[in-house]
Amino acid sequence: MRATEASVADSLRHATLAIKVLIVINRQVVLASRPEGEPRPDNFRVVEKPAPEPQEGEVLLRTLWLSLDPYMRGRMSAARSYAKPVDVGGVLVAGTVSRVEASHHKEYAPGDVVLAYSGWQDYAISNGSDLRKLDPQRAPISTALGVLGMPGMTAYTGLNTIGQPKAGETVVVAAAAGPVGSAVGQIAKLKGCRAVGIAGGADKCRYLTAELGFDAAVDHRAPDFADKLREACPKGIDVYFENVGGAVWDAVFPLLNDFARIPVCGLIAQYNETAAPTGQNTVPQLMRTVLTKRLTIRGFIVRDFASQAADFERDVGQWLRDGKLKYREDVVEGLENAPQAFIGLLKGRNFGKLLVRVAVQ
Amino acid sequence: MRATEASVADSLRHATLAIKVLIVINRQVVLASRPEGEPRPDNFRVVEKPAPEPQEGEVLLRTLWLSLDPYMRGRMSAARSYAKPVDVGGVLVAGTVSRVEASHHKEYAPGDVVLAYSGWQDYAISNGSDLRKLDPQRAPISTALGVLGMPGMTAYTGLNTIGQPKAGETVVVAAAAGPVGSAVGQIAKLKGCRAVGIAGGADKCRYLTAELGFDAAVDHRAPDFADKLREACPKGIDVYFENVGGAVWDAVFPLLNDFARIPVCGLIAQYNETAAPTGQNTVPQLMRTVLTKRLTIRGFIVRDFASQAADFERDVGQWLRDGKLKYREDVVEGLENAPQAFIGLLKGRNFGKLLVRVAVQ
Repeated sequence: MRATEASVADSLRHATLAIKVLIVINRQVVLASRPEGEPRPDNFRVVEKPAPEPQEGEVLLRTLWLSLDPYMRGRMSAARSYAKPVDVGGVLVAGTVSRVEASHHKEYAPGDVVLAYSGWQDYAISNGSDLRKLDPQRAPISTALGVLGMPGMTAYTGLNTIGQPKAGETVVVAAAAGPVGSAVGQIAKLKGCRAVGIAGGADKCRYLTAELGFDAAVDHRAPDFADKLREACPKGIDVYFENVGGAVWDAVFPLLNDFARIPVCGLIAQYNETAAPTGQNTVPQLMRTVLTKRLTIRGFIVRDFASQAADFERDVGQWLRDGKLKYREDVVEGLENAPQAFIGLLKGRNFGKLLVRVAVQ
Repeated sequence: MRATEASVADSLRHATLAIKVLIVINRQVVLASRPEGEPRPDNFRVVEKPAPEPQEGEVLLRTLWLSLDPYMRGRMSAARSYAKPVDVGGVLVAGTVSRVEASHHKEYAPGDVVLAYSGWQDYAISNGSDLRKLDPQRAPISTALGVLGMPGMTAYTGLNTIGQPKAGETVVVAAAAGPVGSAVGQIAKLKGCRAVGIAGGADKCRYLTAELGFDAAVDHRAPDFADKLREACPKGIDVYFENVGGAVWDAVFPLLNDFARIPVCGLIAQYNETAAPTGQNTVPQLMRTVLTKRLTIRGFIVRDFASQAADFERDVGQWLRDGKLKYREDVVEGLENAPQAFIGLLKGRNFGKLLVRVAVQ
């Protein structure tokens, strides 16, 4: 190509880019109103804005995968929690896997795929501080939101640091077909424990034992759930990885062994409660059992254990490559379907890590 | 002395001993019936038996000091706990400081003073396995039941291992004028913490701040107790050493900071409850706070930390010698008064470590 032609081609390319930026629309899912109890479709609203323009030191990100996780229910409420709520009218928060579309940041180039925290929208700006570059050759990029991401690390750090499972012990986890629970059970098996999963429905229970190698799976929708759980735990429970709360807790509580450990990373079953939720036991009864059985109950969120990220990536990465750890994704197509998918998530309708494919890589 | 005289003297001495053994009466306080709610005097009965005779490998112990501690209420109930209950008609259990009266054990000689677990009685037999020799020159022997014994070690191990107080943090303890609470608060001060004690009545509160150096003391009988506790903890609560439960817990709960640690070693306020005790919060509400604030709640009993005994004796022994740790004893005279004293203990009537002087050293 001669100099003149190259110059013309360059000009054209720049012109195209300029036009493209002008016409790009950023769809955003915003919080229309705070849910009372179960979120409804009218608590969400899709708005369209021009895609933002990156300034010096910033990148423009295109969302490829959007992660839907139960903790987001907390951000929709004004109640105090470990993070600030989303304002009404604000874009809902979420981890994403995104592609760099344009960059004024020396460490990122267009085409780079990154783990980001763009929220429920097509495009977002980042200054790079919250990004992590992903290597698409190493693992499917969506796993950065699942087994190799926040849910996997929640399972790994909470189980190891608080649960401290020893070979021969019984580890119980609920929402066991989800991304946290399935990792908890499989890691427990790798440590030589008996892994018992609690899930909703026969399909999920079958998946846990037949595909993931859990020793037993119990359907929490069964009328004799508490009896079935007791049968599945003939030596009691040494570690209960708590991520649902509610009625499952009531069934687990009497089965806890002396010195049982209870990492608490979520309480999905309670997130939509409006009245003060009640249980089979009172706090003084719980505390009596904490004392007599010397239980450890400890809440955590994954960023409390950020210092364990390298250990997590090494171990879980290796288990994945060795085929010792399996995962399952539940993919919903299109950002506009995120609200309905999220509503279903809180009802346990997903089967595996719930992801929205916002754009094709 | 000539041989014959020595022989006669020997014979006389043996004769005297024989007569003495024959007439020795062992008073025992036995569980007459299981208390429903608060123990009453008729739940106890004093019986008289001949003192037992030590066999080969055994010693006969004379109780000098009898320790009364809240955990004994649990032993009077048939409910499952971390130790077997006392049978109706059985001698109530207790730690004692005792003197060896007669010995057929090579490691113990008459006159030795030992820490024992003789129970509520004048005399007991031991094979030595549960004894620890005390050096009366080192510390007053009664301290082996208090600041240098089980209560002191409960405070030391629970605070250090579970509470993990850091300089500048706020440590709150109830029953703070008792042997566990007073040690918890003083050790917290030695670690550079703000120590806040909860106690019943102005005298105890004054003692905590004026004598023991607590930063603040709050009377749980005051009608505005919860407000006063909040004022005493302007930066919230980082460690709550739980030994009472009940209404105090309800006042503490909203003041807990993120990452607060709650060692649970007792629940005195609940021990006499007959109905299922209730509180201001439900278990699901508690668990929500465990999650959002990432609390650690962990029950323990002192023998779980038996491996820390040497550290405890070194540190607390040194603090006592340096005058950095003070203690107070509440002495009741006579075994026959043990039941009434114990009933008062559960109502907080004691002021300091409650001890019964059964015999004079």
